[in-house]
Amino acid sequence: MTEFRSIDARTGQPHGPALAVHGLDDVARLCAAAEAAFDLYRATGREERAVFLERIAEEILAIGDPLVDAAMRESGLPRARLEGERGRTVGQLRLFAAVVRAGAWQQLRIDPALPERQPLPRPDIRLRMIPLGPVAVFGASNFPLAFSTAGGDTASALAAGCPVVVKGHPAHPETGALVAAAIARAVAACGLPEGVFGHLVGPGNELGAALVADPRIAAVGFTGSRGGGLALARIAQAREVPIPVYAEMSSINPVLLMPAALAARGAALGQAFVGSLTMGAGQFCTNPGLVLAIAGEGLDAFLAAARDGVAVAPAQTMLTSGIHAAYAAGVEALAASAGVDTVATGPAGEGPCGQAALFVTTAKAFLADKALGHEVFGASSIVVTCTDEAELATLLKSLEGQLTATLHMDAADEAMAARLLPILERKAGRILANGWPTGVEVCHAMVHGGPFPATSDARTTSVGSLAIDRFLRPVSYQNLAPAVLPAELTDAARGDGAPRLIDGTLTL
Amino acid sequence: MTEFRSIDARTGQPHGPALAVHGLDDVARLCAAAEAAFDLYRATGREERAVFLERIAEEILAIGDPLVDAAMRESGLPRARLEGERGRTVGQLRLFAAVVRAGAWQQLRIDPALPERQPLPRPDIRLRMIPLGPVAVFGASNFPLAFSTAGGDTASALAAGCPVVVKGHPAHPETGALVAAAIARAVAACGLPEGVFGHLVGPGNELGAALVADPRIAAVGFTGSRGGGLALARIAQAREVPIPVYAEMSSINPVLLMPAALAARGAALGQAFVGSLTMGAGQFCTNPGLVLAIAGEGLDAFLAAARDGVAVAPAQTMLTSGIHAAYAAGVEALAASAGVDTVATGPAGEGPCGQAALFVTTAKAFLADKALGHEVFGASSIVVTCTDEAELATLLKSLEGQLTATLHMDAADEAMAARLLPILERKAGRILANGWPTGVEVCHAMVHGGPFPATSDARTTSVGSLAIDRFLRPVSYQNLAPAVLPAELTDAARGDGAPRLIDGTLTL
Repeated sequence: MTEFRSIDARTGQPHGPALAVHGLDDVARLCAAAEAAFDLYRATGREERAVFLERIAEEILAIGDPLVDAAMRESGLPRARLEGERGRTVGQLRLFAAVVRAGAWQQLRIDPALPERQPLPRPDIRLRMIPLGPVAVFGASNFPLAFSTAGGDTASALAAGCPVVVKGHPAHPETGALVAAAIARAVAACGLPEGVFGHLVGPGNELGAALVADPRIAAVGFTGSRGGGLALARIAQAREVPIPVYAEMSSINPVLLMPAALAARGAALGQAFVGSLTMGAGQFCTNPGLVLAIAGEGLDAFLAAARDGVAVAPAQTMLTSGIHAAYAAGVEALAASAGVDTVATGPAGEGPCGQAALFVTTAKAFLADKALGHEVFGASSIVVTCTDEAELATLLKSLEGQLTATLHMDAADEAMAARLLPILERKAGRILANGWPTGVEVCHAMVHGGPFPATSDARTTSVGSLAIDRFLRPVSYQNLAPAVLPAELTDAARGDGAPRLIDGTLTL
Repeated sequence: MTEFRSIDARTGQPHGPALAVHGLDDVARLCAAAEAAFDLYRATGREERAVFLERIAEEILAIGDPLVDAAMRESGLPRARLEGERGRTVGQLRLFAAVVRAGAWQQLRIDPALPERQPLPRPDIRLRMIPLGPVAVFGASNFPLAFSTAGGDTASALAAGCPVVVKGHPAHPETGALVAAAIARAVAACGLPEGVFGHLVGPGNELGAALVADPRIAAVGFTGSRGGGLALARIAQAREVPIPVYAEMSSINPVLLMPAALAARGAALGQAFVGSLTMGAGQFCTNPGLVLAIAGEGLDAFLAAARDGVAVAPAQTMLTSGIHAAYAAGVEALAASAGVDTVATGPAGEGPCGQAALFVTTAKAFLADKALGHEVFGASSIVVTCTDEAELATLLKSLEGQLTATLHMDAADEAMAARLLPILERKAGRILANGWPTGVEVCHAMVHGGPFPATSDARTTSVGSLAIDRFLRPVSYQNLAPAVLPAELTDAARGDGAPRLIDGTLTL
């Protein structure tokens, strides 16, 4: 077996002792424990489950600096970023606690009996959402806290009432182990069955594949590469009982620089763009990998400022040597593509450091080469110059599905933006104006999702409170006696704070 | 090309002239028209769309007797059943009109900007649901009105704002043509683009396969066989952009006769069971194909009454000769299975008539032969005798996913029912007490869905108002100016009657 070690991202050297690696028997053991815990866990009340989520947040904070230190060492990301990410992780657990308490996720519906109805009486029918079952979550390399062991997928699945088995990302095993232990402490402190949370550790794809194939797993949450997400989706589809896979995979996040905004502040936009492009070494799912604009003086000013910014943007340590190698290959391929010019590349760094890179091409060349529209994970972007709005619209329609689409616009651009909006809505999960896509707010109205291949399921989001819906399914109860009916559906439970749709009327 | 004719279900003879058959170019043409109509149609207001749905209902009613006559001739179902089904079809269009007006399906969410928040301000973020795009709907053989051309899938997709292309079921082409013309009249009367509704006619699988593969189709609704649903799911998964398939496929709808109820009224339950079993020649997705009980005097009384009822249940014309042949083969296979005894078969009829059939076996035999748990579409059922509650629970856990699970129970059975409920919830979309699964109410709390293979997507229902959610996806709008923001998300739209989640608080 390959020795499995925590790697210091900056040096590429192992840190600490060789780590124990789980095997296929551990996959089966953790899935069996999750299945055994499911009925007990899903029977927890809203308050009990909310307290559990809050306890996980407290236990994570209680780890203190060692957690941030480990994440820094394993990811190469700076302290401020990881402290912020820890805050987001804790905040999202607390958000889901509030969501669980509010109870709307249960989607309670009550259609009372109509015994006198003609030609047939109507029975009493009541509906609630129940959790799907144990969920497999894959930690993401680029968010060692907020999208890994206790990240958004885990928080939303636990909130829904699903036990979780995490396959930790091999790029941050120490960070993952610290967080997994914090969750385990919360499980114990809340008197929940141990199987509510499981954690698999190891390199390679074998453990993850076995996890998704395990018949006790009912859904999958994943953030990572297109190849990885598609492979998991294939395994999930080939099961005797196929299961949903929520894979967030690939996006180049088009940024549209609209004519009036570009004329008014092309250079300022160019500077700000470089900030978004190079943040976190460009290792964001929402990194702006594509800029679209109509050619002109404004775009020239944008390009000049962006060129100057990229040229001095410090090289940054990337998450892993594999990600760095893929980034370097992607940049090289872009530079060599027909019709593509290099605007600027950043200074080289030492070790597995990503140099920022900016390219420019024409709409015609972009449309002729599908590869130019593929994600290069890292601080690389390509500016596509269009001749007019019609060509811009054609280009937008040609794009694959995206997580985000950004408009930089002024009042004079509104009419054009309104014309393009129906195209953008069909391409992206989030449309934003006069900002940068790299900030993803954890809130109720957030959609971090989008049409394929941005995700494998455009009907959902992996960030924000709506993410809980991914792990629920409706069950209808007809004419059940109150003693058998789930408590929240009984008449006695009215007034418990959860909204109900009663005979079609929403009541609070 | 095979000649395509409307077949009289009772005689097996063609009725009327040879019918025009669509080709692959028609598939492409109708998909292109649906795509072209999409943005216009989804931009309709709630009132406009509701009026359109109501107009379809009116146009269907305006056809009058010829519609029921055609459906009777093509399906072999009796007049009262088809008049009831027409009522249900019209009622469900009107229900979706009310749902569209109420506006909750938009799931409006508004998280206002927090410019003063530390360490970072929060932008203004708003969310709404938008329709997926053109939807392919497959007409079902067993509901020529309520689950075909203007059935539940069509009504919910149109309600969501999706154009629909129906592949009419070849077993009822005249019925389908009458309904398609009614929808087309409603489209014209409401001034909507023609492409909002398309209708494909022809035998075989080629048209349907091409429809699901067409890149302009964004989702699929299907009710039919397991083989058919899985084939469509495979096509949908193999596309360059995979799409969701909502296939309702296969269910044997276990009925649990609980000890106290069985002791109190075993014979009466046996009589009533035969009524549910033989209704519509047993051609319901919710037909009770499996009865479970603990052996004893009550079950003996049930079996005796059911035997007497089945023995005199008139043979009934089945929908098609193919369905009849499959039913006959299924019954023959059950009769020949090891450990299975024939309780009774109904009298033979003339032509493609299904004879009711009732079998009995032990839990041990049932668990040993998976084939005994497969659907036999028609008036066939198998009673499984268990020795005790533990064996009953084991048997329930072994079942595949189901549309329904039924409990016949008295007060003394409540404790046992409560113990079994967590198992039933994981197996079925609807759990009902002291009734029969064959009646499916079209209402807000209905779930006509369930775990695989009952459906291909347990997260949804194909009957009831919740079905609209299948054809929607969330989009988030960040910092968009009111002039660009979708109207329903602007502050000016508050008070339009739709509920909104504002900063996490549900407001009406």
